[in-house]
Amino acid sequence: MTFRATILTLFPDMFPGPLGLSLAGDALSKGLWALEARNIREHGLGKHRTVDDTPAGGGAGMVLRADVLAAAIDAVAPADDPRPRLLMSPRGKPLTQSRVRELAAGPGALIVCGRFEGVDERVIEGRNLEEISIGDYVLSGGEIAALALLDACVRLIPGVMGAADSGSEESFENGLLEYPHYTRPRAWESREIPEILLSGDHRKIAEWRRAQSERLTQARRPDLLNKS
Amino acid sequence: MTFRATILTLFPDMFPGPLGLSLAGDALSKGLWALEARNIREHGLGKHRTVDDTPAGGGAGMVLRADVLAAAIDAVAPADDPRPRLLMSPRGKPLTQSRVRELAAGPGALIVCGRFEGVDERVIEGRNLEEISIGDYVLSGGEIAALALLDACVRLIPGVMGAADSGSEESFENGLLEYPHYTRPRAWESREIPEILLSGDHRKIAEWRRAQSERLTQARRPDLLNKS
Repeated sequence: MTFRATILTLFPDMFPGPLGLSLAGDALSKGLWALEARNIREHGLGKHRTVDDTPAGGGAGMVLRADVLAAAIDAVAPADDPRPRLLMSPRGKPLTQSRVRELAAGPGALIVCGRFEGVDERVIEGRNLEEISIGDYVLSGGEIAALALLDACVRLIPGVMGAADSGSEESFENGLLEYPHYTRPRAWESREIPEILLSGDHRKIAEWRRAQSERLTQARRPDLLNKS
Repeated sequence: MTFRATILTLFPDMFPGPLGLSLAGDALSKGLWALEARNIREHGLGKHRTVDDTPAGGGAGMVLRADVLAAAIDAVAPADDPRPRLLMSPRGKPLTQSRVRELAAGPGALIVCGRFEGVDERVIEGRNLEEISIGDYVLSGGEIAALALLDACVRLIPGVMGAADSGSEESFENGLLEYPHYTRPRAWESREIPEILLSGDHRKIAEWRRAQSERLTQARRPDLLNKS
């Protein structure tokens, strides 16, 4: 089973974008995952292929129509499509590394990228869209959020990273932030690599790294410690 | 003063990427902001322009060298450059809409995108890099994180969004998630637009929206309520 991503967007040219290069791009070329970006406007109404309208009750911006978006969804994801249907939205559940692992282990995702003021609430309910947020800030649309979510997933697909880079010691994987890294040269601008890392004592190095991870997490993200 | 972004990356071709289209792309063409992506490898060592080395103390992956990255930073940002120096990193402080507003109101940013296992800790200290995280998940590099941060900033630069879309009623701007949106048609798949939004009573509509925002935030993100 190949991880298959289908994007619904008004800017299909934004894809694969950065995912066409480096780790994700190599994996895409090798067929380790698949990506299709479809223009919601294909299902727009009338001569101008209209996709949006003014908000009921007044207010700024335009709202993506339920009928248009539902038609776009139905055209790419039949009712028996096992893939989760995601809507990138600042109102959504915050994305976590654990949700990324779940998604990466599954069949892929249908990802709806909103623009304008928002999406008609009824299509979220009627097509069972799961709202996901990549963070507590507002983007101009869901496209870059979709790129972030896919990049996080794709690197975990078997065969994409080398076995040595399994990611098991990364930030969040053990509930802690990652410890500091050092490499050659041994001294740089009067700053030395910590002695212990050059000792060759693997048990002590592991202890030091764990202590550093705990110290950093306590200092920067005490909220992560309170979760466990 | 124009908002000026300089990106240090091993994949300059990822820029402007999605920021070359739509709202951010139009603003880039109009000169409302500027973007320059520079390859860290220009400052790589030896014939192969090496930028990384194995981690001191052992372990998976490769670490970006302090000397190479410092040379790349010094070449684009002299000591008196007033722009903040950001390092996109899952260990960083979580990006918020309030930090986005601060950045958007400033002269721009120098943004370092890591790859591999990480960046030598000494260059973070020695060049005063501010680690920023776009969320609690791990990407294959800092590039898509930089795109997200810039997209969030650029839309707030004066002149980029129309006056009507000032963003003041968006998620996070009042500490709450945004209320649900509706637009035509009035009925879709037996789902109706809530009666109150069609009433024309602006005070009641504002009250309803506020109550919906509070209900959604309480249900999905009680952590946001506890912050205020």
